[in-house]
Amino acid sequence: MRPSGRQTNEMRAVSIETGVTMHAEGSCLIKCGNTHVLCTATIDERVPPFLKNSGLGWVTAEYGMLPRATNKRMRREAKNGQSGRTQEIQRLIGRSLRAGVDRVALGERQIVVDCDVIQADGGTRCASITGGWVALKLAVQKLMKSGDVITDPLVDPVAAVSCGIYAGQNVLDLDYPEDSEAGVDGNFVMTGGKLIEVQMSAEGATFTRTQMDGLLDLAEKGISELTEAQLAAVG
Amino acid sequence: MRPSGRQTNEMRAVSIETGVTMHAEGSCLIKCGNTHVLCTATIDERVPPFLKNSGLGWVTAEYGMLPRATNKRMRREAKNGQSGRTQEIQRLIGRSLRAGVDRVALGERQIVVDCDVIQADGGTRCASITGGWVALKLAVQKLMKSGDVITDPLVDPVAAVSCGIYAGQNVLDLDYPEDSEAGVDGNFVMTGGKLIEVQMSAEGATFTRTQMDGLLDLAEKGISELTEAQLAAVG
Amino acid sequence: MRPSGRQTNEMRAVSIETGVTMHAEGSCLIKCGNTHVLCTATIDERVPPFLKNSGLGWVTAEYGMLPRATNKRMRREAKNGQSGRTQEIQRLIGRSLRAGVDRVALGERQIVVDCDVIQADGGTRCASITGGWVALKLAVQKLMKSGDVITDPLVDPVAAVSCGIYAGQNVLDLDYPEDSEAGVDGNFVMTGGKLIEVQMSAEGATFTRTQMDGLLDLAEKGISELTEAQLAAVG
Amino acid sequence: MRPSGRQTNEMRAVSIETGVTMHAEGSCLIKCGNTHVLCTATIDERVPPFLKNSGLGWVTAEYGMLPRATNKRMRREAKNGQSGRTQEIQRLIGRSLRAGVDRVALGERQIVVDCDVIQADGGTRCASITGGWVALKLAVQKLMKSGDVITDPLVDPVAAVSCGIYAGQNVLDLDYPEDSEAGVDGNFVMTGGKLIEVQMSAEGATFTRTQMDGLLDLAEKGISELTEAQLAAVG
Amino acid sequence: MRPSGRQTNEMRAVSIETGVTMHAEGSCLIKCGNTHVLCTATIDERVPPFLKNSGLGWVTAEYGMLPRATNKRMRREAKNGQSGRTQEIQRLIGRSLRAGVDRVALGERQIVVDCDVIQADGGTRCASITGGWVALKLAVQKLMKSGDVITDPLVDPVAAVSCGIYAGQNVLDLDYPEDSEAGVDGNFVMTGGKLIEVQMSAEGATFTRTQMDGLLDLAEKGISELTEAQLAAVG
Amino acid sequence: MRPSGRQTNEMRAVSIETGVTMHAEGSCLIKCGNTHVLCTATIDERVPPFLKNSGLGWVTAEYGMLPRATNKRMRREAKNGQSGRTQEIQRLIGRSLRAGVDRVALGERQIVVDCDVIQADGGTRCASITGGWVALKLAVQKLMKSGDVITDPLVDPVAAVSCGIYAGQNVLDLDYPEDSEAGVDGNFVMTGGKLIEVQMSAEGATFTRTQMDGLLDLAEKGISELTEAQLAAVG
Repeated sequence: MRPSGRQTNEMRAVSIETGVTMHAEGSCLIKCGNTHVLCTATIDERVPPFLKNSGLGWVTAEYGMLPRATNKRMRREAKNGQSGRTQEIQRLIGRSLRAGVDRVALGERQIVVDCDVIQADGGTRCASITGGWVALKLAVQKLMKSGDVITDPLVDPVAAVSCGIYAGQNVLDLDYPEDSEAGVDGNFVMTGGKLIEVQMSAEGATFTRTQMDGLLDLAEKGISELTEAQLAAVG
Repeated sequence: MRPSGRQTNEMRAVSIETGVTMHAEGSCLIKCGNTHVLCTATIDERVPPFLKNSGLGWVTAEYGMLPRATNKRMRREAKNGQSGRTQEIQRLIGRSLRAGVDRVALGERQIVVDCDVIQADGGTRCASITGGWVALKLAVQKLMKSGDVITDPLVDPVAAVSCGIYAGQNVLDLDYPEDSEAGVDGNFVMTGGKLIEVQMSAEGATFTRTQMDGLLDLAEKGISELTEAQLAAVG
Repeated sequence: MRPSGRQTNEMRAVSIETGVTMHAEGSCLIKCGNTHVLCTATIDERVPPFLKNSGLGWVTAEYGMLPRATNKRMRREAKNGQSGRTQEIQRLIGRSLRAGVDRVALGERQIVVDCDVIQADGGTRCASITGGWVALKLAVQKLMKSGDVITDPLVDPVAAVSCGIYAGQNVLDLDYPEDSEAGVDGNFVMTGGKLIEVQMSAEGATFTRTQMDGLLDLAEKGISELTEAQLAAVG
Repeated sequence: MRPSGRQTNEMRAVSIETGVTMHAEGSCLIKCGNTHVLCTATIDERVPPFLKNSGLGWVTAEYGMLPRATNKRMRREAKNGQSGRTQEIQRLIGRSLRAGVDRVALGERQIVVDCDVIQADGGTRCASITGGWVALKLAVQKLMKSGDVITDPLVDPVAAVSCGIYAGQNVLDLDYPEDSEAGVDGNFVMTGGKLIEVQMSAEGATFTRTQMDGLLDLAEKGISELTEAQLAAVG
Repeated sequence: MRPSGRQTNEMRAVSIETGVTMHAEGSCLIKCGNTHVLCTATIDERVPPFLKNSGLGWVTAEYGMLPRATNKRMRREAKNGQSGRTQEIQRLIGRSLRAGVDRVALGERQIVVDCDVIQADGGTRCASITGGWVALKLAVQKLMKSGDVITDPLVDPVAAVSCGIYAGQNVLDLDYPEDSEAGVDGNFVMTGGKLIEVQMSAEGATFTRTQMDGLLDLAEKGISELTEAQLAAVG
Repeated sequence: MRPSGRQTNEMRAVSIETGVTMHAEGSCLIKCGNTHVLCTATIDERVPPFLKNSGLGWVTAEYGMLPRATNKRMRREAKNGQSGRTQEIQRLIGRSLRAGVDRVALGERQIVVDCDVIQADGGTRCASITGGWVALKLAVQKLMKSGDVITDPLVDPVAAVSCGIYAGQNVLDLDYPEDSEAGVDGNFVMTGGKLIEVQMSAEGATFTRTQMDGLLDLAEKGISELTEAQLAAVG
């Protein structure tokens, strides 16, 4: 039924390769099927002005797509400015990652997570959150090794997956052909078995609470698989 | 328990005054407590390029806040460009309103809904959706009166409300003092008793599916009250 | 002779409602016929850099129009930047208000006056100056009540009116139908019976000194009426 | 009394050199004392969209200052965008020049007048209007010579001068030391002995109608001298 | 003598992996030591306006760096606009690639080459040209296979290398530690054994024609090695 | 053979007039044939942030063209932002001038050189460098006269000329008709008989090392003539 031949509750193959750039304090290349995102974490000892002398840390994210990450070439945002969609996604990534951080334990410093989509096939924001957490964790491990951070500010992984109603059925982890047809889809972010963010949207359709429950079931299943992959990646 | 003394499942007073500007094809001033939003609907016989010769209509929205709509004066976006938050909100309003439109019945024309916040006290995006639908409906009534539209493209009202967890309790229709303290809050958009959009977010917290269900119960109650006010306003 | 049926030297009905927003230190909604402008005054204890440690205060203004304040919807300036016309108007408002301020008495603080046009029917810049002064006065009254300012820095009201040559006759307080047809029009700003600013412009026409004198006579009459309304509004 | 030693009703030396660039259809370098402005006129056979197929011509102007035209180097507008002041000035120049054009006689084409200040010592907008008219006239002469225009669309020269109240006295043609001290100053644009534009402004002062009349007397005298120089320049 | 231990005339290891993205008509990942650039070629059947109906093709390039491609994180250009350096580089890449294209044979279509630096260690513009040509060639091969292009418009590879004077010696293929210390460096672009572009620059130094000749000798050696790698990559 | 009738190794007439503006610390109007550039040097006692407390000086340059400096009017960069070409040129001018400066001798201050093209006929960047050095030198002479600088930080003039292959022949100092036809052209910057910058480019052509040597011979001849003119100008 699904274009890819997957079961309705079947994730795409996930791989997370770490240490992929020589410069960043933490980095990984996450592949969720054909969606490939390069995530790097940069430690910055300065915090944004509103946190000066607060003792609290900060995590923020930026998101981008290479112009030909998609089937049809997109205009380069460096020439045209960030779209509303891009800004919305990077706000979501930052908010999601922060929800899994003990900002006191992190101490007054900032970590910037860059998520750049090398190849897109649906679910880039979810892959960015999942891979972004891995990059963040690796950077934090460096801070703990050097003694700059004592208590681990990252307890449980933060991971995200999309679910939607495709051809009348609830399906897990939409790829682009599904995403572009689905009347209802959602992004779910969880940590430690609990929810952080739920974003469900219908365009030209509606959904019931029962359907929403079904999607949440799928999301829980998918996220537990992603969490395993994250923990394996960060050792 | 709530700063305003309201019950946990109690909405703020809602009023919707229509016909508030002499120029727009549809308009209203919606007041949800101290949150006041001026909504206007403009009929434009041209559609965006991707809909040319499709026979389909379009509804889009723009959102703004007067600089001193808030307690602390904000920088004027006309001087600094729209923030990511503003863009995110106006995308939500447009998507929500479109979900309640029969675009074939509307015919190949566009309606632009402007939502401008005159005074803010929490829940401006929800008030914009609820009031925006009223302005849209009034503009459509004009098109039907003139015979330009035959079948009503707007069947059920689209309305939105926020809910959140404040001081450990699920509460309906957060005002600003609650919103700025709540660790979890969400915006819920419904039409005809079904969901269109759910956006739940935690900053520095998490939530369970049980809590989410509680918030959905509250949202359903609030939205049914808003729908009554909308129907009364559009006669 | 005039589209509205007014006498050549007759103002539109003026009303000034104060205290219209809960947040601003001073505010009013001024209605000059169908032109409605919301004016708010914000006290900012910081002055612009060039006044640091000067002991002198500052008053500045910003101006905007809601996109559907006009008959034809205008593009939102938050998306496109402020037009030259908008910048010219807000410079005029700021300059006019400052001309009526004793900047030593105000002390080293800034008051920002926002003038946002809710509905436009000609004469928006003049209504902004007249209403802006009322909002400014109310904010200053607050500073005097709290003892932060001792001597009133605002002696006489600053008010403005437009006049022009319509259908060959000098007329007072042009509405939009007149303004769009007038070959010559002008804006006049006065305080305490004296002039602060005169801006007369011809597009596709010229004018004599005699005609100019006639317009000044009308302006004086109109401004004295506006001043009464201002004084009534600020008690 | 004046820093330059001039009489109160004495203009600075004016010179207008024509044909100063090899490319433009009309050009001049106007010097009003130490204020030097290079004016060029470019004929463009396309008109702005709102004039397509109207048979009417258009004249527009752009204004700029070289960064070190002033005593203190200004930031380059190509890097920072045009200031509000620049936009206000170029709107004034365009409006003033158009007031002296028979747009039917010009025919459906546009002439763009560029006024670039090489050296500034007060009065740059007035010098731009006066010199801009000369460049415009030279371009029109070319169109008449080639037979593209039959009836001269420029009858009387358009010229401008500033006047103000300096050290308590009405003075003609303010230079920068006067301009920066004057509490009241104005710019006056005339054609054929009649007024086109009057812009009087007080910063930290007021003025009476009697004072205004005195400034208008000075302006008439100055403009008649400028007009002679313009007519001599265009032969 | 060199930080990397290389001989003065020794290139870094070069690898070119093709077909690295599923969407682009041509793509490769070129690695010149630790400098990694992802190059994609997009076929666009529309040409820029100035080539409409000319029968001539066009090749253009865009260049970017991921924010953490460098040792110190750079600001994201999507948020801040393209720097002068970025624009200069992408103009160089486009010009260089066009110099190796028979634009008649290509036919009236455009190929856009995107060069995005994943990891930087000096020489990113040269790697972009060398890898960009490979992506371009692969896209052209697709056009030839489909019969849309008959005669190969790309005869000889276009390749580029940097050389400079480091610690008093002429060295080939500077890495970042060398590049940041070299007083003189240059970029050389060649095709078919001939030069297309030479850019030599001294900052705080000068160079003689003899030194320049030495650098050209090195460049010729390096480019012949790059050309072999290019030909191997495109089969 | 050349459109101008010049010999292949013949420069255009060069004149350098100094002291052309009353405000700048150093200024000249350089004319290379019909290419006229106004160069001013501004002394700024503040250095860019990265040089604070370094004891080192800085020289930077900005470049612009009046809109009608060219045959066809260009869009004003103040309205549209600086083009890539403009940024590339001003970076070249700044880099070239800095190469001839002893930054220790200059002391911790900045000199900004503005090069504004009044009339263009090819070679504007070279004229800007040559004239820019003169303006810079005059400003430095002022600093030495006042005792703010003790040792002259400018030993040898920096000058630049373009050469290219036109109609199959190497020619010196291309004017616009040659420049727009030449398949290969280059800009050469020298000081004290040595090279600082070489930029050779082919569009739709290639060149050999022998041809390049021929162009360098021409450049050396041209630059020695420019250097004489510079030295005469600065006395």
